[in-house]
Amino acid sequence: MLRVAADKTEFKYDQLDKIIMYDLAFSPYPSRVHIALYEKGLHDLVETKTVDFFKGENKQEWFKQKNYSTSLPVFEFKDGSCLSETISMIEFIDRLGEPTLTGFNMMEQSVISMMTRKVENEILGAFVQYFRNAQENPQFAETQKTKVLDGLKYVDGILSANEYVCGDRFTQADIALVGAFILADMIKFEVPKHQALWKWYTKVCERPSIKTHYQATNKQLPQ
Amino acid sequence: MLRVAADKTEFKYDQLDKIIMYDLAFSPYPSRVHIALYEKGLHDLVETKTVDFFKGENKQEWFKQKNYSTSLPVFEFKDGSCLSETISMIEFIDRLGEPTLTGFNMMEQSVISMMTRKVENEILGAFVQYFRNAQENPQFAETQKTKVLDGLKYVDGILSANEYVCGDRFTQADIALVGAFILADMIKFEVPKHQALWKWYTKVCERPSIKTHYQATNKQLPQ
Repeated sequence: MLRVAADKTEFKYDQLDKIIMYDLAFSPYPSRVHIALYEKGLHDLVETKTVDFFKGENKQEWFKQKNYSTSLPVFEFKDGSCLSETISMIEFIDRLGEPTLTGFNMMEQSVISMMTRKVENEILGAFVQYFRNAQENPQFAETQKTKVLDGLKYVDGILSANEYVCGDRFTQADIALVGAFILADMIKFEVPKHQALWKWYTKVCERPSIKTHYQATNKQLPQ
Repeated sequence: MLRVAADKTEFKYDQLDKIIMYDLAFSPYPSRVHIALYEKGLHDLVETKTVDFFKGENKQEWFKQKNYSTSLPVFEFKDGSCLSETISMIEFIDRLGEPTLTGFNMMEQSVISMMTRKVENEILGAFVQYFRNAQENPQFAETQKTKVLDGLKYVDGILSANEYVCGDRFTQADIALVGAFILADMIKFEVPKHQALWKWYTKVCERPSIKTHYQATNKQLPQ
């Protein structure tokens, strides 16, 4: 399934119709891609197919052929090639046109790339590990919970000085942080009431992209 | 410390001299950045400063100011701004000119981005978790070891059909996989003798970038 184009031909927009997005409604990683698609005005490009994660459908062979990692979401293009990994999928969408979620110039791109990873590693990824290991590896789960709480304090500090995670513009790093709130919502985890963090969250929930996604998945926005 | 340039001005090459690279010789993540710098012919741009990870120097406040995550490596630019996260640092270097390690066109960039993440998540990252948790959370460590072994089998399959991880060209995804061999070497972990995987490793070790890095850190190349 893995192929790299040998020439430098750019993707053509008309090759992009009928992208299938293997999906799981209102979950941290698929939601990030939905929100990015709404931000770009490109949501119509995808047709979603829900994969029943809770019944282990993502671990079946047909799905592993599309994504070895068994994670959701995944794009499948007309020719059968697949693209997984949330960050890579959002980078892909972002290259289709403005407004940019991944940065205009080298320094912007680098800061957004770095901060998206920090939100993933320090908060969202650690949060997933906490959730997954709470029963079987409670000691490890506890270290991950501490990491999440520290990470939330860290971004609260950033958001006290910046309007968004990477400065004065909404980017893919903000979308990653929304993912953490979505996971908290799913597992009824109380996100600490850090002032700048919640001010940011209330503000980003006013964005049409996030409003639309919450409404489409029948979820309540914060009051 | 976090700033995003508001305009679209590109970085100028002459702003890039005297980059300090906080470093840890022959370790999986810093080595990836060294190898990328050698591949690009840009190793002279950086002046390394070793941070004593084993004495916890990376957890001291002065270092956390440069990188909240406490991970190595980190670039520090002339103006004091810092860039961490190995993938983001290599993307940054890669934007300075050809040959590309991150792809020419959208599909290449997406596949390389995706596969770099898969090598990180399924192999190198899981390997680090295995190593870190072996004593305190042995049950969790065991799941991570299984993940690493499965991941190595997965890339062996890819390398049976492709010369490199992403097809016919050496990319950042290959460098990430070299990171896993470097960790294996550090902790005396025997990498399973999958044929295509070892053929690939022997071949990439012939590259001047990797040869130079191994020699500079007094490490032996595979025989």
